[in-house]
Amino acid sequence: MVWIAADWGTTHLRLWVMDGDAVLRRMETDEGMGRLQPEDYEPTLLGLLRDHIPVAQATEVLAAGMVGARQGWIEAPYTTIPAPPPSVAAAVRPETRDSRLAVHVLPGMRQDDPPDVMRGEEVQIAGLMATEPDFEGIVCLPGTHTKWVELRGGEVVRFRTFMTGELFTLLSDQSVLRLSVGAEGWDDAAFRDGVQRGLARPDSLPAGLFSLRAEALLRDLSPEASRARLSGLLIGTELSAARDIWQDRPLRIVGVAALSSAYQTALSMQGAVAATPDLDEVTLAGFRAAHKALATVE
Amino acid sequence: MVWIAADWGTTHLRLWVMDGDAVLRRMETDEGMGRLQPEDYEPTLLGLLRDHIPVAQATEVLAAGMVGARQGWIEAPYTTIPAPPPSVAAAVRPETRDSRLAVHVLPGMRQDDPPDVMRGEEVQIAGLMATEPDFEGIVCLPGTHTKWVELRGGEVVRFRTFMTGELFTLLSDQSVLRLSVGAEGWDDAAFRDGVQRGLARPDSLPAGLFSLRAEALLRDLSPEASRARLSGLLIGTELSAARDIWQDRPLRIVGVAALSSAYQTALSMQGAVAATPDLDEVTLAGFRAAHKALATVE
Repeated sequence: MVWIAADWGTTHLRLWVMDGDAVLRRMETDEGMGRLQPEDYEPTLLGLLRDHIPVAQATEVLAAGMVGARQGWIEAPYTTIPAPPPSVAAAVRPETRDSRLAVHVLPGMRQDDPPDVMRGEEVQIAGLMATEPDFEGIVCLPGTHTKWVELRGGEVVRFRTFMTGELFTLLSDQSVLRLSVGAEGWDDAAFRDGVQRGLARPDSLPAGLFSLRAEALLRDLSPEASRARLSGLLIGTELSAARDIWQDRPLRIVGVAALSSAYQTALSMQGAVAATPDLDEVTLAGFRAAHKALATVE
Repeated sequence: MVWIAADWGTTHLRLWVMDGDAVLRRMETDEGMGRLQPEDYEPTLLGLLRDHIPVAQATEVLAAGMVGARQGWIEAPYTTIPAPPPSVAAAVRPETRDSRLAVHVLPGMRQDDPPDVMRGEEVQIAGLMATEPDFEGIVCLPGTHTKWVELRGGEVVRFRTFMTGELFTLLSDQSVLRLSVGAEGWDDAAFRDGVQRGLARPDSLPAGLFSLRAEALLRDLSPEASRARLSGLLIGTELSAARDIWQDRPLRIVGVAALSSAYQTALSMQGAVAATPDLDEVTLAGFRAAHKALATVE
């Protein structure tokens, strides 16, 4: 039986056509929530799925992420922690004109004190719990808004969000640093130097950022080294502020490969060992669990 | 005798038509370095000054700021500190086609260790030294790239740059925070709350930023309060990291009125008293001193 998993974030839609547990096809587009109006979601799905779903019956679509935000397709109210990742029973059903789609938008999670929210990462957390049912510890989900999530007794018990990824993008693309930070390239020593600086003086980020510009002007710091040190500076600062969460705890990092590897390196500089399970595998495990639960619900 | 003072930064050109010490006219445009090619500077000046300078002789133009950067009109090499603000004798003279202009581009200042640079603020420092010749202590120049400058024995002996202003603009205009941070408005209590948070946990800026978004979603934090708390968070973090510079020292803040007042409030929360001399007055005092020196040089 064909069904669809849709990880629908602010900037991207990642979509899997599934048959039971098997992946028939993976698609990715930049038709994220940020550029869609509520009436755009159904045509976007149909445009991508037209040739991949049966005509005679409704195909179940499980969607998670910003698609469920207030400004998304339909608001799926947050589940309040402590709680397990939201089950499909809590999903919200947008009406569709086309009878070929049966859409379930999964809720995100909220923490009341201190206030924090997530949308999308809860699927990866569910996937990690499905693949490692006994895991208790910390999951780091690096990205635009990096999350550090504590799992205990099958529940999310707290989390904290850092704007590290968004800061990196804004600073390297749009601030004065764009004049000296390369658009690509990497320098591992410069990354480690940045991590070290961030850890040593986490309060000095706004000055450390400008020093990248000054060193490019006065010491010919290369574009690749600037880029890697900027990343290190931001991640080091984050690790310092999140130390109370990750120190001496079992750790998993779930994110795109290059970024997960950067966090893994930075953590290893502090003597912390973190496994980095594959993002797509973990995401799919979360959607598969939700799909199995759907059979029970319906 | 008519002469021109030009504070020519990345985003703005502020220009004064002077007659001796008197201001005949003040102009401001957004024709900053960021949008000009080297060949654009002369026509920009002539366009603004055409009706205000004599035809028969060359008018002296004293220019400072990013106009003297490598990517500006002509590169005016930095003066290395410790040193007094650069004198007009160190200015660089771009050639002009039009004989009505005699342009002097004043150098910026550099610090070799740790590497740091300034362009433009040295005029305000010269102005402060002209109006308060005996001042020894710290000058804070808040702006896109806030500078904290230590003056001793008539020299700049060290300084440190924070990207606080640029972070505020990027975050409030272009990050996810734009969805909840107002474009205007203010809330003094929220500002003070932000300063307090920044001072208490200066390492937590990347998490503190996202908490603004979460509180808007979960606690209806208003656009005005979000804006003021974002500003407070950034300034509080900066004050914490700059404490070794400003604590127990005589202080002056030289910047646009609203921003100077915000820094003054934040410093006062830490028991520090800072005078806020008028930005235009201080800037003009710096240019007047350079203009007087010009008579000696030529």
